[in-house]
Amino acid sequence: MKKIVTRYQALANEISAQIRTRVLRPGDRIPSVRAFSRARGLSSNTVLQAYHLLEDRGEVRARTRSGYYVAGQVSPPASDADATVRSKASGFDELAYEVFQTARLRHYVRFANAWPSGHLYPLRRLSRAVAASTRRLAADGMPTYYPRENEELKRVIVRRCLEWGFGGTVDDVVITAGAFEALHVCLRAVAQPGDAVAIESATLYGQRRALERFGLRAVEIPTHPRDGVDLSALSTALRKHRIRACLFMPTFQHPLGSLMSVERKRELVRLLAARDIPLIENDVYGELFHGGSRPVPAKAFDRKGLVLYCSSFSKTLAPGYAVGWALPGRFTRTVQRWKWTANTLSGMPNQAAIAEFLQSGGYEHHLRRLRRSLATLQKQGVQSVLRHFPAGTSVQRPEGGYLAWVRMPRQVSALGVYRLALESRVTVAPGDIFSPEGRYANCLRLNFSQEWSARHDEALRTVGAIAASLR
Amino acid sequence: MKKIVTRYQALANEISAQIRTRVLRPGDRIPSVRAFSRARGLSSNTVLQAYHLLEDRGEVRARTRSGYYVAGQVSPPASDADATVRSKASGFDELAYEVFQTARLRHYVRFANAWPSGHLYPLRRLSRAVAASTRRLAADGMPTYYPRENEELKRVIVRRCLEWGFGGTVDDVVITAGAFEALHVCLRAVAQPGDAVAIESATLYGQRRALERFGLRAVEIPTHPRDGVDLSALSTALRKHRIRACLFMPTFQHPLGSLMSVERKRELVRLLAARDIPLIENDVYGELFHGGSRPVPAKAFDRKGLVLYCSSFSKTLAPGYAVGWALPGRFTRTVQRWKWTANTLSGMPNQAAIAEFLQSGGYEHHLRRLRRSLATLQKQGVQSVLRHFPAGTSVQRPEGGYLAWVRMPRQVSALGVYRLALESRVTVAPGDIFSPEGRYANCLRLNFSQEWSARHDEALRTVGAIAASLR
Repeated sequence: MKKIVTRYQALANEISAQIRTRVLRPGDRIPSVRAFSRARGLSSNTVLQAYHLLEDRGEVRARTRSGYYVAGQVSPPASDADATVRSKASGFDELAYEVFQTARLRHYVRFANAWPSGHLYPLRRLSRAVAASTRRLAADGMPTYYPRENEELKRVIVRRCLEWGFGGTVDDVVITAGAFEALHVCLRAVAQPGDAVAIESATLYGQRRALERFGLRAVEIPTHPRDGVDLSALSTALRKHRIRACLFMPTFQHPLGSLMSVERKRELVRLLAARDIPLIENDVYGELFHGGSRPVPAKAFDRKGLVLYCSSFSKTLAPGYAVGWALPGRFTRTVQRWKWTANTLSGMPNQAAIAEFLQSGGYEHHLRRLRRSLATLQKQGVQSVLRHFPAGTSVQRPEGGYLAWVRMPRQVSALGVYRLALESRVTVAPGDIFSPEGRYANCLRLNFSQEWSARHDEALRTVGAIAASLR
Repeated sequence: MKKIVTRYQALANEISAQIRTRVLRPGDRIPSVRAFSRARGLSSNTVLQAYHLLEDRGEVRARTRSGYYVAGQVSPPASDADATVRSKASGFDELAYEVFQTARLRHYVRFANAWPSGHLYPLRRLSRAVAASTRRLAADGMPTYYPRENEELKRVIVRRCLEWGFGGTVDDVVITAGAFEALHVCLRAVAQPGDAVAIESATLYGQRRALERFGLRAVEIPTHPRDGVDLSALSTALRKHRIRACLFMPTFQHPLGSLMSVERKRELVRLLAARDIPLIENDVYGELFHGGSRPVPAKAFDRKGLVLYCSSFSKTLAPGYAVGWALPGRFTRTVQRWKWTANTLSGMPNQAAIAEFLQSGGYEHHLRRLRRSLATLQKQGVQSVLRHFPAGTSVQRPEGGYLAWVRMPRQVSALGVYRLALESRVTVAPGDIFSPEGRYANCLRLNFSQEWSARHDEALRTVGAIAASLR
């Protein structure tokens, strides 16, 4: 028998759902009968009947001459139970999103994040700088309330670029809301929907998605975990496809960790320059080298303005502050325009805070300490993997950054390891999210930026045992 | 005779340029000879020769055992002179960008901005809230350093939507970096590159550009300055073109200011629902009504989940904070995914600050005062236009917001008025930037949110005289 729900019952159920999901909470006033009936185009009588029903159920209470209020006690706030990730595979995008969501799970040992751990960054000092710069903006009031890039910040960026081997003036810099926005506007500036863009394989999910965002086709170029993108494969692809641009990470590639040598970077730039093909260089990890000196970006070999250099402060200084930049070479004007209509006014206090930090002189000191910490943390993590994972496992230990790429024996399903590890409250990123063709089905990406403890070693022992059981 | 420049001279010239453009400033240390030669792949000798040349020219000074430093005094910091907008027309996009840049001109009377004036907003109180929330995030350190939408903010948004006639739960809300990002991700969620999307004519430049960003084709629908989009023209367009989605502002349309009646909004939603066509509703001005009650959004009539409602706090509470949102109906999951790979971590302190403000109860009071101020300011501005502009000028005075649409006699070139007004240090937005087909070549958009003064009346007298001279 079909259950008939009247209009007022439907309305009452809708409000109940809002109370249950804590949109409306104990003590909250619900809209007046008059306002609600007008807004929804329902008769006052229908709304009143709904409110009476809710009153009868004890969900709202009427207060004389004041209206209706949400009654009683409610369940405690949403706990981790609500956040528990449903462990179902359904396609590449679903899986990538699911893995991303594991970043929110408290009380888990988390190796799956793409972000570095907050404890490595001077967040308190930055927060004071943000507070001060927000206050200054407010005090200035209207005159400065215009979209305006921070000129000081642009100056310090150009000065750093100078040290890395490419010059320029402040007019060559475009400030963006993080490195991803830089990649987006650079991609849009050099390619039209339908164009083919070469990317590394494996590739960070967000970069693949950036191509999809603009209707661009991805051409995957094999990439070696140590040497980086395969130049002869690239050369073949350039002849075979009409490739409009390349989007590469020559330094500490994500997820593989590979570092192209100076010679190979130079050759890459030469190869593309000969065909006038732009290179979008994502260099967010370049500053996180573990020893020796700062790897030279490919941009340093750019003589034709074809390299669009992108980076941010999210990995080096201020995670979550979303301050990035591009030096787009000959495409600067076009990139500036795409940036303008994206997100014009945002980030002014954050830009000012970072500029202040960089000028105050503590940045180099912080970076040195950060690099040392990352090197130590990674060494501990890699040793723990080698200790606990089944024979036949190899770990590419990159010379920079905080990620490690673990290749398990071919029969071991990374997806299986991921799912079983979740049940043990450990998160790892399965290789499946770095290529929709399932090329890395026996690989894991692990984040080693958290403070190391016996708990982390124990968690990797568990994951290693899971991997062994799946052989 | 061709001038030969040696390698070291070229390097010295490059550094000179950086000193001239203040990338390097008096007292700044320039890179060590060793670091610089390594970074650039030049011999130490070449770098040293360049430094010696700069020393000879008096541009740098050597300090014993410490390196080279930029010498002397430099010109004062970049003044408004640098920002002076080059007054050359070269296409629709160039003009739009040029007009946008007039927003930066200090010492000008500015009617050209799209943003409301900062003096109308509680910026100091907000800055304190941002400072507090940034501090809390820093103190929490790592555990909360994950991309996480502010659940409190989502709750207060849903509760406001409930008052406007459409319910939902927190899971129906997607928080974005301002309304533009909301429009972008909604567009991308409902349309593929190459699809046609209907927009109003005239249209806010940024909305047209949002279509172009994703390779979407714009189909312009005639829009009346009082009644809004022409439904019979839309109906014809829906039969004629394969329109994939509509992007409209039914309430206080930008730039026309039109307000669709409740009946016409209902009809619009019905018309599109019959064909299963999504409507992206940009409602950023809905709260800025000057009298009576809050205009009901089209979303209130959505029964099929086809309306993707977009708004932000940038016009109502916190300009520059870039906190917006979407209620994308049946497209919520897809929109959430596109948002995720855009800009995951940003805006957490700003979201928290706005949530705190909204919960503390001062928001309604602020809004009431804001609406009163805008109504008064607009009345003064419109009266001044009517007083000073040539006969045959009509002003559509919208029932909300802070923009007015001025239609001058047909022979008057808005572009001419714009350029001549600039010379008198007054900025106005010419109608030419709202349609590439030059349909509004005799119209101006004026922003009346600044504190009104005799100077503003005087400026409009000047602009009116310019318009009269161009008849």
